[in-house]
Amino acid sequence: MSKLFDCVIRNAHCATAADIFDADIGIKEGVITALGKGLPEGETEIDAKGRWVLPGGIDGHCHFDQPTNDGTVMADDFLSGTRSAACGGTTTVIPFALQQKGQSLKAAVADYHERAGQKAVIDYAFHMIVSDATETVLSEELPALISQGYTSFKIYMTYDDLKLGDREIIDVLSVAREEGAMVMIHAENADCIAWLTERLLKAGKTAPKYHAESRPMLVEREATHRAIAFAELVDVPILIVHVSGREAVEQIRWAQGQGLRVYGETCPQYLFLTAEDLGLDDDMEGAKCICSPPPRDKGNQQVIWNALESGTFQVFSSDHAPFRFAGNDGKLATGETPSFDQIANGIPGVETRLALLFSHGVNTGRMDINQFVGLTSTNVAKMYGLYPRKGSIAVGADADLVIWDTDTVRSISNDQLHHNVDYTPYEGIKVNAWPATTMSRGRIVWQDGRYLGTPGMGQFLPCDRPTPAKPKVTAPDPL
Amino acid sequence: MSKLFDCVIRNAHCATAADIFDADIGIKEGVITALGKGLPEGETEIDAKGRWVLPGGIDGHCHFDQPTNDGTVMADDFLSGTRSAACGGTTTVIPFALQQKGQSLKAAVADYHERAGQKAVIDYAFHMIVSDATETVLSEELPALISQGYTSFKIYMTYDDLKLGDREIIDVLSVAREEGAMVMIHAENADCIAWLTERLLKAGKTAPKYHAESRPMLVEREATHRAIAFAELVDVPILIVHVSGREAVEQIRWAQGQGLRVYGETCPQYLFLTAEDLGLDDDMEGAKCICSPPPRDKGNQQVIWNALESGTFQVFSSDHAPFRFAGNDGKLATGETPSFDQIANGIPGVETRLALLFSHGVNTGRMDINQFVGLTSTNVAKMYGLYPRKGSIAVGADADLVIWDTDTVRSISNDQLHHNVDYTPYEGIKVNAWPATTMSRGRIVWQDGRYLGTPGMGQFLPCDRPTPAKPKVTAPDPL
Amino acid sequence: MSKLFDCVIRNAHCATAADIFDADIGIKEGVITALGKGLPEGETEIDAKGRWVLPGGIDGHCHFDQPTNDGTVMADDFLSGTRSAACGGTTTVIPFALQQKGQSLKAAVADYHERAGQKAVIDYAFHMIVSDATETVLSEELPALISQGYTSFKIYMTYDDLKLGDREIIDVLSVAREEGAMVMIHAENADCIAWLTERLLKAGKTAPKYHAESRPMLVEREATHRAIAFAELVDVPILIVHVSGREAVEQIRWAQGQGLRVYGETCPQYLFLTAEDLGLDDDMEGAKCICSPPPRDKGNQQVIWNALESGTFQVFSSDHAPFRFAGNDGKLATGETPSFDQIANGIPGVETRLALLFSHGVNTGRMDINQFVGLTSTNVAKMYGLYPRKGSIAVGADADLVIWDTDTVRSISNDQLHHNVDYTPYEGIKVNAWPATTMSRGRIVWQDGRYLGTPGMGQFLPCDRPTPAKPKVTAPDPL
Amino acid sequence: MSKLFDCVIRNAHCATAADIFDADIGIKEGVITALGKGLPEGETEIDAKGRWVLPGGIDGHCHFDQPTNDGTVMADDFLSGTRSAACGGTTTVIPFALQQKGQSLKAAVADYHERAGQKAVIDYAFHMIVSDATETVLSEELPALISQGYTSFKIYMTYDDLKLGDREIIDVLSVAREEGAMVMIHAENADCIAWLTERLLKAGKTAPKYHAESRPMLVEREATHRAIAFAELVDVPILIVHVSGREAVEQIRWAQGQGLRVYGETCPQYLFLTAEDLGLDDDMEGAKCICSPPPRDKGNQQVIWNALESGTFQVFSSDHAPFRFAGNDGKLATGETPSFDQIANGIPGVETRLALLFSHGVNTGRMDINQFVGLTSTNVAKMYGLYPRKGSIAVGADADLVIWDTDTVRSISNDQLHHNVDYTPYEGIKVNAWPATTMSRGRIVWQDGRYLGTPGMGQFLPCDRPTPAKPKVTAPDPL
Ligand SMILES: [Zn+2]
Ligand SMILES: [Zn+2]
Ligand SMILES: [Zn+2]
Ligand SMILES: [Zn+2]
Ligand SMILES: [Zn+2]
Ligand SMILES: [Zn+2]
Ligand SMILES: [Zn+2]
Ligand SMILES: [Zn+2]
Repeated sequence: MSKLFDCVIRNAHCATAADIFDADIGIKEGVITALGKGLPEGETEIDAKGRWVLPGGIDGHCHFDQPTNDGTVMADDFLSGTRSAACGGTTTVIPFALQQKGQSLKAAVADYHERAGQKAVIDYAFHMIVSDATETVLSEELPALISQGYTSFKIYMTYDDLKLGDREIIDVLSVAREEGAMVMIHAENADCIAWLTERLLKAGKTAPKYHAESRPMLVEREATHRAIAFAELVDVPILIVHVSGREAVEQIRWAQGQGLRVYGETCPQYLFLTAEDLGLDDDMEGAKCICSPPPRDKGNQQVIWNALESGTFQVFSSDHAPFRFAGNDGKLATGETPSFDQIANGIPGVETRLALLFSHGVNTGRMDINQFVGLTSTNVAKMYGLYPRKGSIAVGADADLVIWDTDTVRSISNDQLHHNVDYTPYEGIKVNAWPATTMSRGRIVWQDGRYLGTPGMGQFLPCDRPTPAKPKVTAPDPL
Repeated sequence: MSKLFDCVIRNAHCATAADIFDADIGIKEGVITALGKGLPEGETEIDAKGRWVLPGGIDGHCHFDQPTNDGTVMADDFLSGTRSAACGGTTTVIPFALQQKGQSLKAAVADYHERAGQKAVIDYAFHMIVSDATETVLSEELPALISQGYTSFKIYMTYDDLKLGDREIIDVLSVAREEGAMVMIHAENADCIAWLTERLLKAGKTAPKYHAESRPMLVEREATHRAIAFAELVDVPILIVHVSGREAVEQIRWAQGQGLRVYGETCPQYLFLTAEDLGLDDDMEGAKCICSPPPRDKGNQQVIWNALESGTFQVFSSDHAPFRFAGNDGKLATGETPSFDQIANGIPGVETRLALLFSHGVNTGRMDINQFVGLTSTNVAKMYGLYPRKGSIAVGADADLVIWDTDTVRSISNDQLHHNVDYTPYEGIKVNAWPATTMSRGRIVWQDGRYLGTPGMGQFLPCDRPTPAKPKVTAPDPL
Repeated sequence: MSKLFDCVIRNAHCATAADIFDADIGIKEGVITALGKGLPEGETEIDAKGRWVLPGGIDGHCHFDQPTNDGTVMADDFLSGTRSAACGGTTTVIPFALQQKGQSLKAAVADYHERAGQKAVIDYAFHMIVSDATETVLSEELPALISQGYTSFKIYMTYDDLKLGDREIIDVLSVAREEGAMVMIHAENADCIAWLTERLLKAGKTAPKYHAESRPMLVEREATHRAIAFAELVDVPILIVHVSGREAVEQIRWAQGQGLRVYGETCPQYLFLTAEDLGLDDDMEGAKCICSPPPRDKGNQQVIWNALESGTFQVFSSDHAPFRFAGNDGKLATGETPSFDQIANGIPGVETRLALLFSHGVNTGRMDINQFVGLTSTNVAKMYGLYPRKGSIAVGADADLVIWDTDTVRSISNDQLHHNVDYTPYEGIKVNAWPATTMSRGRIVWQDGRYLGTPGMGQFLPCDRPTPAKPKVTAPDPL
Repeated sequence: MSKLFDCVIRNAHCATAADIFDADIGIKEGVITALGKGLPEGETEIDAKGRWVLPGGIDGHCHFDQPTNDGTVMADDFLSGTRSAACGGTTTVIPFALQQKGQSLKAAVADYHERAGQKAVIDYAFHMIVSDATETVLSEELPALISQGYTSFKIYMTYDDLKLGDREIIDVLSVAREEGAMVMIHAENADCIAWLTERLLKAGKTAPKYHAESRPMLVEREATHRAIAFAELVDVPILIVHVSGREAVEQIRWAQGQGLRVYGETCPQYLFLTAEDLGLDDDMEGAKCICSPPPRDKGNQQVIWNALESGTFQVFSSDHAPFRFAGNDGKLATGETPSFDQIANGIPGVETRLALLFSHGVNTGRMDINQFVGLTSTNVAKMYGLYPRKGSIAVGADADLVIWDTDTVRSISNDQLHHNVDYTPYEGIKVNAWPATTMSRGRIVWQDGRYLGTPGMGQFLPCDRPTPAKPKVTAPDPL
């Protein structure tokens, strides 16, 4: 007679986004079916040795195999990208199906499924990027796709080939409100950036470090304020992605204080990098850390820590955007010394996200383990309609679990990572936590330093309408 | 052979402060020992019928049988108080062991244990009220009591017989920092109140409604700001209790935004009452709603809702302070038409707290069920060192559970309540949620409208040092 | 031998924007040449009887004879407009030379000079309205016109036929910075208004009162924030015109607190009208009070008073925009019951501006007489490059003076006014101050209730580069 | 026949707090009796050569010959103090008549008149320091003294021998409201300072630099907030003196934004010194810069500049507190290496105040000349009831005038100063403006580098009730 559990994890010191408990975890067919003291023996047994067992990470913002039109190629596809994620303790990723201007959104999604193919090692869902808010997209494609499980999308307030005008943003938000989708907003003012960039280039200031000067804090503050105003107008929740510093945080806190459902995301680069990492002189090495918004300074890093601790942010993502530094299809695709505005935007980080936050957030005492789980997994699952299947250790949830080794101190080194990028911006930063075991729906994909995944085992996840994507209640109480 | 479980709750639609899951709950010796699908049969079985099963409420701020010295008598002792709590879905209460000026704190605690006696129906812990911060109290009694399980205390910035001076507050906070205790602060400026009261009385403005005029918002704002400054000085977390409106909320949000660990509590009276409930004319009925800070207005109610929803507040308590309106030892102990400052402060609410918030918070869509659990139970347990024994549905936690009936609409009516007070300020307010079953450590104390508790079954709970009672981390990262 | 003075005003109780003094005022050839005790006799003598003698008002924001393209006609030209101004104590007006899209700015200015012709009773300068920021406008016309004395201009963030895009705004601000001009900004978000208007019209909500709903506070707050961000980017002063309420005021105060040179203007409609004046039902009478931004509510009126008193605003203007209610070329030019968005925007007020503020600001004690002079005259002169010729009682300044009668109480009544509009929105409001005498460059144009002006006596005033139009100094101290 | 004017200043390029004009200034019997072009010849003539002629400075906060009880002696009495002031362009000073605890306020004033004797070179008024708010002081002495011309007083929230309790502050503010007096508040929280000081001393941190650590910004922020709350409670204007940095500025701006009449003062030390001037090591030299609140850092200096420019502050004073560094009755009166809390508080600056602000404020373009005049003279006169006799260049005002030399660059050097202190904290700072001539009521007291004053020529000035000392108007409009 077959056993009750395919696998039992013993002595698990578990944490969810709210709780801490010690239990055995019983897994059947990839799902957690029991939590208890002294569960009966499983087909296989794992001893967690009293270590932290946490829900697998969900990276709600990463870019894999995304089409470009400037000669660059993303170095990570769904195989190397999900492999790298799994080795870093992430069990679900949500990359972006990008609509090119002129393209049908449906076609963009179909194309992205082809790219995903049978490569993924862990489960994945899609955000969409809406760059062309035509009448068809608004009235037909978006509603249809949302009902088919594509319930979140990102819109841009900058980048010529992606940005929407104000009216388009309002229209997209209206659809989101009507259909119950979650809108992620890249908030930087395109015109300010263009004006500054022209002046910098005209002045011969072309080195990577001028990227930061071309996108000062006010550029992000303004767009954040504007996005919040539109969300208030339409009465729809939004999520401001990759928030970098004080002035944007203040806008988000203001909105939350008004009772608006404005959510925020930040990323490792705003905790661990500063504008100085873009270079102090004209060295092209700084290109490695070019991303938007750019890293700020030490004072802003502290503000970002505060906003994580105080609950201003709900989501902590990598914004993994994989471009190689060497070669001619990555950071320097447009030449050997391109001006800063010609350098591919984005930095890798899908594998290092969790260890960095665990080590410098939890282990320093800045945040507790529940906040960590919420920011890296539970809140992400809820924000994007993957909950309760993903994001927790609970009866009925997928057995996406990570056993953490916190008896380690190591320096981050790119040669230990599993992505396909030739550098990490976090090279040399110390961590004292790293996944010992990563389990995806009951299958071990990373253990004791060895990658054990199988391409194609990752499943596509259609998403529900996200719980947080509900308008603010202000109507008089019906009772 | 005895069964694995004393009781199994089937078909439980469970919520914690972060999660939602459907499971059977296995209980052994008053503790949750398993959560799972298809658990083996228990000695007893309860069918939750797919209803919400939540952690029992923890009322982190209520007053039972507290000694007074003005001729008033609290109408609820540990029996009627805990009975009322249980019938409203609360399974743990934390009333206050009050030190009178001149009294030893240790003696106050001992006295309060005697008052508790063998009366409690559900479990209970003690906060202390420190009203006399002598050298002995600071250097001996407080450290000793904290290590013995009295790890939280309230201090007052107003009330002549309770208030501490600024230096005393700082000294008490220093002890809390040193010992890891949580300090609750009643923040109103005593001198402002005294000055206003004198002027009102001199002008013959003595009716209950002038109570609100004697304690305007600025009185609370100032004291809140001052308390925050002291917490910042000493670098210690604090919790501002019974926050009533916008200006105090703004202070707390400011502090949280700075990264300070300043927590907040509010109570039903600030959501459901306004200053008009103190009377529009000189009617003494208004005395029923006299509490401090006073209820404000509709605009401030909305601010309080926003602060609950946005996470500005961590704790939602009743501040149950039971004085009868009739008779000569309650609200009108000092005469038939006492001036407002001679009327006993406080209103009852231990039984109605949860149903009010569930009905008007969760069922309206203002907050989700997880927030409800956090505010009414989990966060309270953590804030006061009762976690993980209390505050969640998790393996190893006490089986303090409530099955909620949400297929009901009823008006709150004092003759349905189980406290010993002759009125409820919430008379007539409709609710569409009420506990069907309340279970305390596996024993049913309330079911289908019948009280089934047994005095003395409630245990005293020594408290751990609370997790949130940790100074802010700002030191350079050790890695 | 001719006398030293053409005119001496005796016993003048004078106020400037900073000072109060009693003196005789000696005037020669339209200019104040002496202030003193016991000045020698003039050719004419006026006894001020100890009354307040103030600098004549400068209305820095009014519309006369402005071309339209929707069938409406402005009811006041340079004759009736300046006559009305003079009778209300204003001695200088600055209406707008409007560039139509496609039109040369130079041509717009030339056309406006023709419209002014020989009609003006008092002196006048021009603001320009830049609605088409072509390369020629930016690089040639604007610099040339600024150097010729047109040193301020208004730009719009709303109205289809006027609004500039974000990049155009930035470019215009850059020219202003380069050339030292002052930019006035009409800050409302066009796309939000359009979206709301479409929805209101679709819902059949077409009455005048919906005008207010179509332009809620957030529309103004967002645009104000954006304008401030652009000014910060370019490092150039700006003036936000016709600020209507709290949220915009907060943005301006935030900017000023950061050290940015962001100035603010408000108008009588935001002190004396509310949205209810647009109608409580569907009555077309509400059209009389349609202006943008719309009047708000009592709470916002108080905020505007506070901002006047605290110095947040520098300028108090009428925004006189004269459309008749009756007839078919005014408010109802597009039909008898046009939808709110088809009704001409703007209300008259050039004659009532000063008396309203004097009566309800100075005479109530809300502001002192110096603030009044600053807000209505001196600051305006400085802001737009007319100082020191205009805006004060000082040796060398033009003898533009008003002797105030404050021994009067009257109700504002349109039949007492001298504009060419058939209503005043301030009908029935009481005032207890009105000009007894208005003098323009030494000539009396209004005295004891009689208009004594002569068309064509008013001169065009080329403006200097305004003193406040200087970038913020943050560079290290050169010393 | 005597001439019309005792003196005429020709070619004066005059500035007031609002205006700029070129005129001759006619003076008769110490009073300005005419301003005009081509005034008739005076008994004496001065050619201002087109230089700035400004109202003489009024130092609204300086300490001369103030009694102490710790063995220190103020180095400047009314002679050396007013001499130093005059040589720096100040023509009126307002030092403090200090009530010692237990002393009658009337006696304190009488004593201070004796100290002033016939020493003063320029005119002077008295503030009182109320340190003992007895019933007699409140109900008798204060009202009587206010009506006798002592219409402003300072109260302290710190210093054991001076500080008032909260209720006393409220009572004093009530008297001020009733009588129309202006209350200056030294806002630092005494208990916080005491607690920090004890800890620092216990840790052996006694050097001057720890003075700054013992009074961090929060100490000032808290007291400022509290003072504002009391002013709001009583509905009375207050002036927060010597504001040092961001957090206090933010409180004052918040209050002003609410419409409260809260005024602010700052001093040169907060623009030109930082905490580093208290020493980087344990050197006692740092004692020279010990004052309270302590200087902060560069960031806070910028905030103070912003607050001056934006009008948040109304008054710029020296807070001259003259203690010698050498000898045994000054900074080191209690020993050679006293702990920081035993060092006399205060720094000299009465002579350098104006040149520092003119050079680094006006000549850099940070503020205009009118703001300079307002901050250093006109506003001070109004704030303390000396206007219109003092504080302007206007007909009827005292001829207290300064002709400024701005064709100079020099370094501040103590051997060029005329006070009796053996150092200046501003040694070596460059200035490019210095008074060429200082005139007090028509008499020259400083000219071309030579002191020409006569002790006893300065008069005591009884003060009117200050104009700004009026409650906020919020009552419904009477019209
Ligand atoms: Zn992005
Ligand atoms: Zn991205
Ligand atoms: Zn309390
Ligand atoms: Zn209480
Ligand atoms: Zn406009
Ligand atoms: Zn206009
Ligand atoms: Zn002081
Ligand atoms: Zn002082």
